[in-house]
Amino acid sequence: MTLGRTFPTDNAELILANEWFSAIAAMSPDKEGVSRPAYSSKETEVLGFLAAQARNAGLTVTFDAGQNAIFSLPEDANAEKYVLVGSHVDSVPMGGNFDGLAGVLAGLLCLFRAKSTNIHFPRPVKVIAMRGEESAWFGPCYIASKALMGVLSGTELGSPHKSDGRPLAEHMADIGIKMDPIQASTPLLNKDDILEYIELHIEQGPLLIGKDMPAAVVSAIRGNFRHKKIRCIGEGGHSGAVPRAFRKDPVLAMADLLSRLDESWLTILQKGDDLVLTSGIVSTDPAKHAMSRIPDEVAFSLDIRSQSQRVLDSMTDLISGEMANIALERRVEFKLDDVISTAPALMNDSVVRNLEAAMARIGLEPTTMASGGGHDAAVFANAGVPTAMIFVRNQNGSHNPNEAMETEDFLAGTSIIYEHLLGANL
Amino acid sequence: MTLGRTFPTDNAELILANEWFSAIAAMSPDKEGVSRPAYSSKETEVLGFLAAQARNAGLTVTFDAGQNAIFSLPEDANAEKYVLVGSHVDSVPMGGNFDGLAGVLAGLLCLFRAKSTNIHFPRPVKVIAMRGEESAWFGPCYIASKALMGVLSGTELGSPHKSDGRPLAEHMADIGIKMDPIQASTPLLNKDDILEYIELHIEQGPLLIGKDMPAAVVSAIRGNFRHKKIRCIGEGGHSGAVPRAFRKDPVLAMADLLSRLDESWLTILQKGDDLVLTSGIVSTDPAKHAMSRIPDEVAFSLDIRSQSQRVLDSMTDLISGEMANIALERRVEFKLDDVISTAPALMNDSVVRNLEAAMARIGLEPTTMASGGGHDAAVFANAGVPTAMIFVRNQNGSHNPNEAMETEDFLAGTSIIYEHLLGANL
Repeated sequence: MTLGRTFPTDNAELILANEWFSAIAAMSPDKEGVSRPAYSSKETEVLGFLAAQARNAGLTVTFDAGQNAIFSLPEDANAEKYVLVGSHVDSVPMGGNFDGLAGVLAGLLCLFRAKSTNIHFPRPVKVIAMRGEESAWFGPCYIASKALMGVLSGTELGSPHKSDGRPLAEHMADIGIKMDPIQASTPLLNKDDILEYIELHIEQGPLLIGKDMPAAVVSAIRGNFRHKKIRCIGEGGHSGAVPRAFRKDPVLAMADLLSRLDESWLTILQKGDDLVLTSGIVSTDPAKHAMSRIPDEVAFSLDIRSQSQRVLDSMTDLISGEMANIALERRVEFKLDDVISTAPALMNDSVVRNLEAAMARIGLEPTTMASGGGHDAAVFANAGVPTAMIFVRNQNGSHNPNEAMETEDFLAGTSIIYEHLLGANL
Repeated sequence: MTLGRTFPTDNAELILANEWFSAIAAMSPDKEGVSRPAYSSKETEVLGFLAAQARNAGLTVTFDAGQNAIFSLPEDANAEKYVLVGSHVDSVPMGGNFDGLAGVLAGLLCLFRAKSTNIHFPRPVKVIAMRGEESAWFGPCYIASKALMGVLSGTELGSPHKSDGRPLAEHMADIGIKMDPIQASTPLLNKDDILEYIELHIEQGPLLIGKDMPAAVVSAIRGNFRHKKIRCIGEGGHSGAVPRAFRKDPVLAMADLLSRLDESWLTILQKGDDLVLTSGIVSTDPAKHAMSRIPDEVAFSLDIRSQSQRVLDSMTDLISGEMANIALERRVEFKLDDVISTAPALMNDSVVRNLEAAMARIGLEPTTMASGGGHDAAVFANAGVPTAMIFVRNQNGSHNPNEAMETEDFLAGTSIIYEHLLGANL
């Protein structure tokens, strides 16, 4: 690691970013990819590494009441109101190295660039490296940002760890967090002090690859409603002996439902609305099913996401209506489990426009897109903080060891934020 | 058991039939229902019971080269050409008491009725109680009838028993069958000696209950082709992050295929053709699937049956065509495993018409229907023996402990055969 290098030097920043990504990956290897558990000593180790890097470069480092690391130029350290840039350092088990970490390093790199070129931001800037965002460890997601905004629930604090079964609250206490304010739903940060929240993240889909663009501004984070196990109950029978008119075939009923939803999806897109729809889990009962038997029932999941609550509401009605029609026509019954839902998070129009303008100033074509996955940014946005995100082109999705972001694209995304921080008064 | 009772006395025959069914069920209890393994000492015990009953009533009993029991009036014992009536005595594991056994007892009851009323059949009649018909024990089905017709293959003879793993040929030898002729594919019966083969069986579907009829004549045994595991391969991804146009969703592709096949099924029925279509097994990969993940692939079975080989052939083409269309439209791939197929068995028109006439003479509305399941009758029919079947109304399908045939319906079915045997020269 060489300090004091001259910024902006694309090649020097590229080498530095690669060194950071490599060093942190080397701290958290697993059988495949990396594992950085939420609220673990592994997180603490990563934050310690980043803090050392930042201090060596002359930046100020503090830890907030949620044991997240906060970085800033020394002159911004005590600013009352500030732009917050950041993301999370935890990962899913055997995940990729970029989901979360890229957003933290982008913020830090902006500070390095400013410090090394003696730039003062027109508005104070703080960079946050948050802990637990991934739901894979305890069930709840966005834990750190929820605690900061005072919206982490008692149920979530009681969620058991996937491996040791101990509740989230104990794991949080273990790493030195005082739990009383969190348990009392007291915000750890005053949201009114946060002028804007900006988060860079790898894209989890293929849109930017398809468009051949390194980065884009996120205009909204899709909300969703989900059912993990919808049962379609029909009537079993001999595959050869029961004529069509006597059948109550749950598999054909499910196929009918999914085909109708798929057709409606196309219509909704053609009207210009935003929607994605997935049935990721489908299964007849392995204890009973057979090639020559009409199954009694089939179970399937549904995951419906949109930027628009209106579209989500209309999908709830559509699904319920189609299920009623199919139940009547095919004499089956659909039994829904409890719905899990998250409201869409709209990004702040003004912040989005300013980020688009920053893209144009550094020579990138201004582009916006929706985020399908959820992010800490949704928590800040839904708390009323003006929020926007930058997505960086990435192959192979996220939450797997094959995440593949090019560092050049990461630097392009970082430069959009840097340009925005410089020019936010435009 | 009272012998020498006066026939036809409905009540006396009802009591006798119930006694036989109860006595044989009591020989072969299992945790649920009955278990009479193919080529087992349990079968031998059942045949021994029936032989004793028949001898006591003055009937002749012999065992053929396949160790099946043959019953007849004494005067028909040495007849060179004869009508053969019968079915099998084995059952599936934890099966019902009626699948197979009803057909044997129907034949025997015809002989009892003739003997007790001193009736001589215009054509000699033999009743056969066959052994192993069920595929549940070794894999191959219709074992006894295939051996009689000389079509039991070496592969089938080598099939291991589901419990002890020893091959079928050893189990057959164990109960006293000389295996050389069977292994040489020498028919154990001269099919040209069999004037007709008639088999009564419980219906395995709900048609006769729906029509409120006690019995019907079977006009054909559906053939089938089946795939146990068709893979539809797409591309995994984040359920929120991949827009519709970028998806290769195998579940929606499968749903599309099944919906198209279901629509074609309706059209085919409306044209007057016979068809049933089942996807009994459907599953995404439990090791990989998740509510928030577009699955990589889904696997499903198909079981297609029809009385008409033409319809089966056109379904093969239809499925292949729809798969090609969907693969192109949805950018997925369908990978078929080896097809398992059985040709439809047409019942003999003249025998069917004569059985319908017999129905009319005893006051039942002549009705024909297709058999969805396969039966020993298919082996005789495909060997060129003029064949037909009688189906008896039965609740809850077959191959389960809940088979529920009313003895009154059984006697109605038996009487159709008896009337046919009496009036076959009409």
